[in-house]
Amino acid sequence: MKIKLNHDLLKANDLLAAGLRQRLAESGVLAVNLMGSPGSGKTTLLERTIETFRDREAGLRLVVVEGDIATTLDAERIERKGVPAVQINTEGTCHLDANMVLGATEDLDLAGLDLLVVENVGNLVCPAGWDLGEDLKVVVASVAEGDEKPRKYPRMFEKAAACVLNKTDLLPYVDFNLERFRDDVARLNPQAVVLPVSARTGEGVAEWCGWLEEKLSAKRLTTRPLAG
Amino acid sequence: MKIKLNHDLLKANDLLAAGLRQRLAESGVLAVNLMGSPGSGKTTLLERTIETFRDREAGLRLVVVEGDIATTLDAERIERKGVPAVQINTEGTCHLDANMVLGATEDLDLAGLDLLVVENVGNLVCPAGWDLGEDLKVVVASVAEGDEKPRKYPRMFEKAAACVLNKTDLLPYVDFNLERFRDDVARLNPQAVVLPVSARTGEGVAEWCGWLEEKLSAKRLTTRPLAG
Repeated sequence: MKIKLNHDLLKANDLLAAGLRQRLAESGVLAVNLMGSPGSGKTTLLERTIETFRDREAGLRLVVVEGDIATTLDAERIERKGVPAVQINTEGTCHLDANMVLGATEDLDLAGLDLLVVENVGNLVCPAGWDLGEDLKVVVASVAEGDEKPRKYPRMFEKAAACVLNKTDLLPYVDFNLERFRDDVARLNPQAVVLPVSARTGEGVAEWCGWLEEKLSAKRLTTRPLAG
Repeated sequence: MKIKLNHDLLKANDLLAAGLRQRLAESGVLAVNLMGSPGSGKTTLLERTIETFRDREAGLRLVVVEGDIATTLDAERIERKGVPAVQINTEGTCHLDANMVLGATEDLDLAGLDLLVVENVGNLVCPAGWDLGEDLKVVVASVAEGDEKPRKYPRMFEKAAACVLNKTDLLPYVDFNLERFRDDVARLNPQAVVLPVSARTGEGVAEWCGWLEEKLSAKRLTTRPLAG
């Protein structure tokens, strides 16, 4: 009975996520679910991403949905970069669900958007199980967390299209075997791309934004084949 | 109905935790629930703690219960230091509960123990809500995670008797305001002790072990007032 109820909750979430995915697809919006441990550097990566796209593709229309247990700190950081942000406070809940994202996006003009990034609650476990209607899941891991994280938290890495390995500027000061990390991710998820980045110094950010641009282009081709 | 079920689960957990707490108290065992984000350095802190107690208090009888989603990596690290470890694999569950710890400790001779450390699943959110029958909750946070973690994940810090601020060797290379961190912890939890540590270099480990020794002594006085 208890297990059944949990299944029902997940099933209800999947139905809501499917509806959201359909709405996003009709508007041609690429939706990214950004996940990772607390302090892996998700918000700093987004700040750098906004700066890079501002130079590269001035017309990109982006909105960020920020999921946090408490505070509006992350949404404020995004808005200081000139990008609209919607803050969800989960008040104790350890992950975002599709209903929360539906609520956060219902007032948005999706047809006027190119990219929606949902920054999930900092948690390497729970968010992996909840579909938010996204096109792509991206996991951010920091080198300071250690190279064994894919083995110990496999589900997050199994489902990610890309793994941003952040804080590479700390590599000289921590024990981290990049080959071992890459091998473990590849074993769990042969399709996943590993992108070493330092959101602090900017190293690798161009490659990450290039990967994201490819996904944006592919989405545009798929959803607006006849657009000029 | 759904909320009620969740309450029932927590209530069942609290009953099991109370039973475990009673059993531990009768045996005079100090039980510590060690929590923190993935990669905050909980296992490395335990390795250093074992080494320090080996020098200081040779007769200390310690067992570690390791909670992980997958792998036996952490239990193997503890056993390599000569301390018995029991590995719990939660297989997807994001926290330990009292029933798991009961199962892991049922074959232990508690009367022959001084200290039981339960290393929880790496997660700064969910473990805070689950009583494991422990005497003390300790949260480990790494300076690489950033100084705003207490504000963003308040529940874990509100409940901790001590906050070990780990990886202080990385302070020169990250943006971290120690005063702000201390102030935020003090505001959430005036009783909590903040202990800056580098489990990697050993800096601050003596102070952490001193704090733990005080708690061990207090437990012995409380539970064995007539023992020689």
